[in-house]
Amino acid sequence: MRTLHDVGEKLAVAEILSRIGSSGAIGLGDDAAAIEIGNRYLVITTDMISKRTHMPDCMSSYQVGWMATAVNLSDIAAMGASPLGLVMAMGLPRELPLDDVMKMTDGIRECVAASGMEYLGGDTKECPELTLTGTALGMVRKDGILLRSAARPGDLIAVTGTIGLAGAALVEIELDEFDPRAREAMLEPRPRLKEGTILSASGVVGACIDTSDGLAMSLYELARASGCGFLLDHDKIPIDPGAVSICERHGLDPDEVTLFSGGDYQLLFTIRLGGLERLRGMLGDDFTVIGRIVPGNGRMLSRNGHLKDLPEKGYVHFIG
Amino acid sequence: MRTLHDVGEKLAVAEILSRIGSSGAIGLGDDAAAIEIGNRYLVITTDMISKRTHMPDCMSSYQVGWMATAVNLSDIAAMGASPLGLVMAMGLPRELPLDDVMKMTDGIRECVAASGMEYLGGDTKECPELTLTGTALGMVRKDGILLRSAARPGDLIAVTGTIGLAGAALVEIELDEFDPRAREAMLEPRPRLKEGTILSASGVVGACIDTSDGLAMSLYELARASGCGFLLDHDKIPIDPGAVSICERHGLDPDEVTLFSGGDYQLLFTIRLGGLERLRGMLGDDFTVIGRIVPGNGRMLSRNGHLKDLPEKGYVHFIG
Repeated sequence: MRTLHDVGEKLAVAEILSRIGSSGAIGLGDDAAAIEIGNRYLVITTDMISKRTHMPDCMSSYQVGWMATAVNLSDIAAMGASPLGLVMAMGLPRELPLDDVMKMTDGIRECVAASGMEYLGGDTKECPELTLTGTALGMVRKDGILLRSAARPGDLIAVTGTIGLAGAALVEIELDEFDPRAREAMLEPRPRLKEGTILSASGVVGACIDTSDGLAMSLYELARASGCGFLLDHDKIPIDPGAVSICERHGLDPDEVTLFSGGDYQLLFTIRLGGLERLRGMLGDDFTVIGRIVPGNGRMLSRNGHLKDLPEKGYVHFIG
Repeated sequence: MRTLHDVGEKLAVAEILSRIGSSGAIGLGDDAAAIEIGNRYLVITTDMISKRTHMPDCMSSYQVGWMATAVNLSDIAAMGASPLGLVMAMGLPRELPLDDVMKMTDGIRECVAASGMEYLGGDTKECPELTLTGTALGMVRKDGILLRSAARPGDLIAVTGTIGLAGAALVEIELDEFDPRAREAMLEPRPRLKEGTILSASGVVGACIDTSDGLAMSLYELARASGCGFLLDHDKIPIDPGAVSICERHGLDPDEVTLFSGGDYQLLFTIRLGGLERLRGMLGDDFTVIGRIVPGNGRMLSRNGHLKDLPEKGYVHFIG
C-alpha cells in the first residue's frame, strides 16, 4: 500500500483536491480561500505547525506562538486582504510546563497585535506532539483580491524586501551557529500585511503569492496557476547581505538559500505593463523587479547574460 | 515548574484567556466566536482532534474525517448560525497509507455535504501524530445569535434528541464489544445544524451550548456563563434506550453515561417563559424539557422527588 512517503506532498494534495475540490469557493489551491460577502470577499486560511517538522530546538515558546500566527497572516497578505481576526487551536503534551504555554500565548498575542487584528478564540487539546493550527480571516474588495492565477505575459515579476536570510539561518542552525538577525528573520517572520493591502489597492498588480516555500517554488506555483512561463533575472534578486556573509563564512552556494530555501515570507507578485511607476509611488522602494512573465511554459533563469532552466526545488513534505 | 498535567485544562485555559482575552470579539469562551459584519454575525470555531486522545483503534479513517468536521459544525449549530464553509488542516505521519488519507477526505466531504455547506480548502503537513484541525464559519442574524450566557431564571431547560448513546459506546469500546448503532452515534455524530437555525429563528430561546462535554458539564458551563443556577429533573432526561440496554448488559450505572459522558453533540438550550408552544410548533417533538433555570448558584438534580447537588464531572484534558 502506498504511503505518503512514497507519493510525496504534491501528489497527495492533488488526490485530496480531486476528492473534495469545491465548485463554489474561489482560491482553492491559492494561499487562502475566499467567500463572497456583499461586495467583498471574506478570505480564510489555515496553517498547522508541529514540533518535529517546524520547531527547531533553538526556537523559543514565544517564537512558536509568533510563527503559528505569522504563517497565517502571510497568506492573508498574499491575497491582498486586510486582517480581520485569528483563531488558534493548540495541541499540547500534558508534560509541557504551563509557563511555556503562557509564552506561546504571548507570541500569538504580540503577532496579532502587531498586525492590528483581533484574537477571536481557540481550542486547547491534549496531544502528544506539540501542534498549533492557526486560522486567519481577512476582508478584501472583490476587485482587489490577489490570486496566484492572475499573472499575464508581459507582467513584471517583483518581490518585497530581501531574500535568503531565513534560509541562511536554517543552515546556521544545522551548523549550530548563531546570527541573531538571521535567526529572528527565520523564527519571527513579519507578514507583509501592509504591503499586501497596498498591492491590492494599486490596481496594477496581477498575481501574488508569498515566498514561504522558497523563491523558485513560489514562482513555479504562480506561473503554473496562471498558465504562463517566467524569466527570472538572477542578477536582480535582492539577496540579503546577511545571507551572503553567512554563505561566504561557510563556503556555501548562495543560490541554495536564495532560490531554493523557504521561510522568508515576502510577497512575490506581478505588475501590469506600465504600472511600475504608480506602484513605486504607493509602496516606495521596499520591492525589487526581478523578472518578467512570458508566454508558454519556459521557466528560465538569466545569469550574466546566460539562460538556463530554473529547477523546481524547495521544501516538500513527507519526502524531504 | 508546573505542567499542564499539574494544573488541568480549566486553569490552563483561564490563564491563556487572561493573557490574550479579546475585548472586541463576542463569544470568546462560547462554542464559537462572532464578528460583526453588517447586520449579521460571522461565527467562527476551531477544533482539533488527534490520534491518541480522540481516535480509538476501532475508528475508521472515514470516521476520523467525519468527526473532525462534525465537532466544528456542532459549535456552529450551538450559536444558531447557518453553516458557511469549512477549512481543514491535516497533520499526517509520513508512513500513513495514501488510501487512509483518501478515506479521511471522503469523511470530511460527506459531512460537509450533509450540512449543505462548502469545503473551502485546507493545509497538509507532516506530523508524527495524526492530527486534524477543522475551522468552520457560519452566519447568523444579530438578533438570532445563541450564547451560553443568555439564560435567565424562569427559562425551561431542554435538549434535542436522546442522551447517553455515545457515552455507552465508549464503555463498550473499552470492553471490546460492539453495538453498531451506539458506535455510529459516537464516531459519526450528526451536528444539529437545522435545529440550531430553528432555535435561532424562534425568538423564544435563551442560551444554547452543545453537549459535547457531557450533560452535567455543559449545563454547568451554561449556568456559569449566565450567572444562574439550575434544577435538572432526572426523570425527564431522554436517555437513549440503546444506552440503557448497554448499561444493563454490563451492570453499569446509567447516570455515568447520561450525565457525565460526552460525545452526544445534542443542543442543550433554554426556552423563555411562555415560549414552549411556539417552539413545539417550529421544531416538532425532537426535544425534551428537562429542567429549569433558577436564580442563584444552586446546581441541583431532582430525582424521585429528592433533591441533591449535581457534581461537575466530565472529560477534562491533561488530567483524565
